[in-house]
Amino acid sequence: MRALQWHGTRRVAVADDLPVPRIEDPRDAVVRVVRSAICGTDLHPYRGEIAGFTPGTVTGHEFTGVVEAVGPEVHGLRTGDRVVASDIIACGRCRPCHAGWHYQCHRVGLFGYDTVVGARAYAGGHAEYVRVPFADVVLFPIPDDVGDERALFIGDVLATGYACAMGAQVRPGDTVAVVGCGPVGLLALEAAWTLGAARVLAVDPLESRRRRAAERGAHPVPGGPDAAREIADLTDGRGADAVLEAVGTDDALLTALDAVRPRGVVCAVGAHASDAMPLPTRLAFAKEVTLRFAVGDPISDREPLMNLVRGGRIDPTFVVSHRMPLAEAPEAFRLFDSGAAGKVVLIP
Amino acid sequence: MRALQWHGTRRVAVADDLPVPRIEDPRDAVVRVVRSAICGTDLHPYRGEIAGFTPGTVTGHEFTGVVEAVGPEVHGLRTGDRVVASDIIACGRCRPCHAGWHYQCHRVGLFGYDTVVGARAYAGGHAEYVRVPFADVVLFPIPDDVGDERALFIGDVLATGYACAMGAQVRPGDTVAVVGCGPVGLLALEAAWTLGAARVLAVDPLESRRRRAAERGAHPVPGGPDAAREIADLTDGRGADAVLEAVGTDDALLTALDAVRPRGVVCAVGAHASDAMPLPTRLAFAKEVTLRFAVGDPISDREPLMNLVRGGRIDPTFVVSHRMPLAEAPEAFRLFDSGAAGKVVLIP
Amino acid sequence: MRALQWHGTRRVAVADDLPVPRIEDPRDAVVRVVRSAICGTDLHPYRGEIAGFTPGTVTGHEFTGVVEAVGPEVHGLRTGDRVVASDIIACGRCRPCHAGWHYQCHRVGLFGYDTVVGARAYAGGHAEYVRVPFADVVLFPIPDDVGDERALFIGDVLATGYACAMGAQVRPGDTVAVVGCGPVGLLALEAAWTLGAARVLAVDPLESRRRRAAERGAHPVPGGPDAAREIADLTDGRGADAVLEAVGTDDALLTALDAVRPRGVVCAVGAHASDAMPLPTRLAFAKEVTLRFAVGDPISDREPLMNLVRGGRIDPTFVVSHRMPLAEAPEAFRLFDSGAAGKVVLIP
Amino acid sequence: MRALQWHGTRRVAVADDLPVPRIEDPRDAVVRVVRSAICGTDLHPYRGEIAGFTPGTVTGHEFTGVVEAVGPEVHGLRTGDRVVASDIIACGRCRPCHAGWHYQCHRVGLFGYDTVVGARAYAGGHAEYVRVPFADVVLFPIPDDVGDERALFIGDVLATGYACAMGAQVRPGDTVAVVGCGPVGLLALEAAWTLGAARVLAVDPLESRRRRAAERGAHPVPGGPDAAREIADLTDGRGADAVLEAVGTDDALLTALDAVRPRGVVCAVGAHASDAMPLPTRLAFAKEVTLRFAVGDPISDREPLMNLVRGGRIDPTFVVSHRMPLAEAPEAFRLFDSGAAGKVVLIP
Repeated sequence: MRALQWHGTRRVAVADDLPVPRIEDPRDAVVRVVRSAICGTDLHPYRGEIAGFTPGTVTGHEFTGVVEAVGPEVHGLRTGDRVVASDIIACGRCRPCHAGWHYQCHRVGLFGYDTVVGARAYAGGHAEYVRVPFADVVLFPIPDDVGDERALFIGDVLATGYACAMGAQVRPGDTVAVVGCGPVGLLALEAAWTLGAARVLAVDPLESRRRRAAERGAHPVPGGPDAAREIADLTDGRGADAVLEAVGTDDALLTALDAVRPRGVVCAVGAHASDAMPLPTRLAFAKEVTLRFAVGDPISDREPLMNLVRGGRIDPTFVVSHRMPLAEAPEAFRLFDSGAAGKVVLIP
Repeated sequence: MRALQWHGTRRVAVADDLPVPRIEDPRDAVVRVVRSAICGTDLHPYRGEIAGFTPGTVTGHEFTGVVEAVGPEVHGLRTGDRVVASDIIACGRCRPCHAGWHYQCHRVGLFGYDTVVGARAYAGGHAEYVRVPFADVVLFPIPDDVGDERALFIGDVLATGYACAMGAQVRPGDTVAVVGCGPVGLLALEAAWTLGAARVLAVDPLESRRRRAAERGAHPVPGGPDAAREIADLTDGRGADAVLEAVGTDDALLTALDAVRPRGVVCAVGAHASDAMPLPTRLAFAKEVTLRFAVGDPISDREPLMNLVRGGRIDPTFVVSHRMPLAEAPEAFRLFDSGAAGKVVLIP
Repeated sequence: MRALQWHGTRRVAVADDLPVPRIEDPRDAVVRVVRSAICGTDLHPYRGEIAGFTPGTVTGHEFTGVVEAVGPEVHGLRTGDRVVASDIIACGRCRPCHAGWHYQCHRVGLFGYDTVVGARAYAGGHAEYVRVPFADVVLFPIPDDVGDERALFIGDVLATGYACAMGAQVRPGDTVAVVGCGPVGLLALEAAWTLGAARVLAVDPLESRRRRAAERGAHPVPGGPDAAREIADLTDGRGADAVLEAVGTDDALLTALDAVRPRGVVCAVGAHASDAMPLPTRLAFAKEVTLRFAVGDPISDREPLMNLVRGGRIDPTFVVSHRMPLAEAPEAFRLFDSGAAGKVVLIP
Repeated sequence: MRALQWHGTRRVAVADDLPVPRIEDPRDAVVRVVRSAICGTDLHPYRGEIAGFTPGTVTGHEFTGVVEAVGPEVHGLRTGDRVVASDIIACGRCRPCHAGWHYQCHRVGLFGYDTVVGARAYAGGHAEYVRVPFADVVLFPIPDDVGDERALFIGDVLATGYACAMGAQVRPGDTVAVVGCGPVGLLALEAAWTLGAARVLAVDPLESRRRRAAERGAHPVPGGPDAAREIADLTDGRGADAVLEAVGTDDALLTALDAVRPRGVVCAVGAHASDAMPLPTRLAFAKEVTLRFAVGDPISDREPLMNLVRGGRIDPTFVVSHRMPLAEAPEAFRLFDSGAAGKVVLIP
């Protein structure tokens, strides 16, 4: 089959002769991919930021497709079912899974991401076929009246944006600030509207991203050192009721903490990786702030998300800027890496 | 001043020579009315359903206006402020008020409703001027960029619809049924969207009301004995996640209990007045239902509501069907009583 | 094997020659019973209140034991494990199960209760051995340092009492009323303490039951028409913040609704079976009451419950009044039916 | 009157000739102090850690007493009422006060603490009399059957411990870790029990403090670099469900973040004052942690707290180690500063 493989920093290539995956475990399914996407997370190995990433890894953790085969212990799925996959792989049977904390699963994994998350590597969705472990946990059927692309992002970025708004406890009438207007930030913005935000302030240093946020009804705020002050000005000096941080850097988090009102909540879904972010505890204590770190959970949240997509409340496809054949995936990665694209969808 | 007075069953009349109210208590304000509205609740005395209602009562509990005078113990309000009044009068200082339960205030009242609610009668808002007790609790400033009519319903029907959706714990992705598509039901419907409903099913026996609900995005369901079955059909047999009951009759509540899914919530904001509604506890127990009775609370909820109105998330004026001068209030009552109108706004 | 069988109204008998159950389905386990108990629910067939109850049914839905055999699709359980069973049988895989609503499971059942709950009958725990379907969902391991009898009630009455207190949203500092001081009521009382109740008022017409409640720190209140008034007197006229209704009759529920304060919550875990309980909606609306019907869910709540038992926060064995050999189960039923006993534990 | 005054680093002295305070504002009351206490917060100026602290300041923000005089705009309080004061002074009328965020009040102050909190200084409670602003907000009546000393700590340390447990969302069955076993930590521990903790692990480097925690039912854990590992060992490697941080240093917060389980909550009520606490965001993100900073709020929480004290659920007086006359307050400060005492109560 055809698939994209990572070979080194900014070196990815399409192979056409990889073996089609097969059922290896009774809980596996094999999915024929219909749509996949490139995620910001994919840029970390692409840019060579992850030491020891295994050459030959088939990348990609956002995909929809059709079930081609199911193992004997997979319940509720049949060959021919249209499905969207969770980016997170979880067993569904351990204690964290029972609590609904799938990213904390004892056997957690991430498609196409080597062993960066979890102890075991799984080939990803930038391919014609994918083997899906714990298939009845990881896959979710797509209703007939929902197209593949509308369902696609439930498996990752929409779930992440939603987790961000939920984690920040957005309430009706709130003024919500979104820090970072990439695809996750834009979908966090949509989720904030869905939860009843009265106003969304969208912070990003890039004018093009602010414009996209403005198209979704947000008030654009340039990033940088003045962002928090501008948010204060826009809120009669109070600050935002909730701040959705979708970048993952120390600076973004500091902006979020500055921008939130007293007793407000900051939810960070950016993939933070600092060992010593300089947290101003004096400020946080004086404002009685809540700071929550969250990871999107497509397994726990897929039902409300599918309902929202199906009911037309959220159409996440607005984040897509390009659609390209899988054969051109290397060019798609270059484009996405350049910052000039929104989501790039790959078609096998 | 001019005002509408109740004189008996379907007997209301405009008087032009009533004294302008004055400050009687240090916490009073006097408001010059700019807009008022007729509420379904007003129909109870109009139809003669309330024994002992005092002739001469100036009716009306929904109004906006301008502060004309404030007592010496009123804080934060000044002459000239544009304000919307809460229909509920509450002192702000008793234990229920401190808990945010204004309808349970030890000194609760309702404008223009004699002593039906609370021990003391207060003249209402179908008038050129109103005396407002506990003014800094009962009145809420209207921002400059919000028109009177958009603010008007925060004081009653919008707050009631919102309380209904909040009380029913509508969550993102829910399928919500609204039983009764009068003004309160329609605003409950809007509130359900605001809280993230993926789908709203709107039940009413009147085609005209269902059509209005459909214009707000709801799926219309004829009322009557088949309503719950149709809702089951529309939800793969499950029932609605939340049911907003905005009628106030035994039948409506029974429909709501039939229509709700197992573990779902029914919130009733209709003014129930039965002493022995035949509750099917067997069904309620088998489905593990929650049944909540709620009264709208414009005092507690006015800030999120004003934010939602100001931010354009909810424009409650769509419920208005007629605007008439106060001088024609008797005709307005006849019209409203006939069922042929939505909200009727009176202009002094 | 030995087991108790129901043969008709107040006719139960021990048989010694029943076949030991075997694995019939890959998800089954067989459990050797160590302790079982008689539940109030068992009295309904005993008293002939359930038409069509199948003669020969092995009764009992509260039991602990040791796993004797497990089917090939049972995960996480091994022969020799000490376990407590949930009274509710649930598949763990349907949509209600995924939502954590095990009593709403599409394949729900109740041990030893014929087809009163669910479509399929399962032999019960008043026996030496029980076949347990969906074993990894229905059984829960008992830690080494927790004795069988302390664990036993997690499978039913303790879970029910806990669901009652949780459903009534007991909060720290609350005054809680418990209506009905049988075993479920007494454990609801304990759960109320666990959730931070400052005061518990225990209503029961029987002096012996009130005394047991008083021994657990509650203030006893005689049942009957004056109960609500006495609760009002004990709360400065306000009523109880939360009322835990553990009887299941119309009268008990009416007392609960009378006794609860405005904006309070009544949670009913009694097995209500009325088709037309005369609900005073006027009162419920005026007080803005929440009425919740709940069924205990040992599957969802077993982890906190086991933690509370293990940590010594709750020792549910105080409800046990008698321990008898299984061979004397008919006498045990007579005793329990007479009202003279608390929980009766049977030892195979 | 007699009062204690701060004159400089470790220089406090009793004066006997200070003027008795009088009503200065219509919302004032004057309270004759019956009991006061020294708080850890008082040690900051005592130790000279607060630049610019005004010499002559009468210290102390924990006190109970009897109302001697009330201003004309004080509602619900009368001369002779026994009261406990909130340490936080709040107006009750601004927007944060209406939201119940009294520490964020636009006119916030702290008795006896100069202008460290808020813009205005108020003489404190280590005195025979205190002037209390916004008296009907700041003072809370003590029921006849509650002694002064049992009520005293509702005004500060008990409210702080309670806010900590509430902020950490302690749930029934949780394993809770308390970091820091001074008076606040010990009362946070009690609050954790009240909320249903199954187990409390109490971390402190001082053996004497661990022993006090153990007397309250906690499992003692020595502080230092191994604390988090020991907590992991005690929880099968998982970590504590909730961590109550009652120290206020970077190290304590890092221990808390290490000790909490994935998806757990850390609530910090220690008075943090770092500008760059080195937050390990990688860890926080991987564990999806919530970190909440909270300040005790005796105004919002006094009713449940008084109920808990009155009902005997919490007796906070166990934290008292010494009772001394006000005349010996300098000696009391020396003792408290030495770390050899629990709470020291002063009797005028």
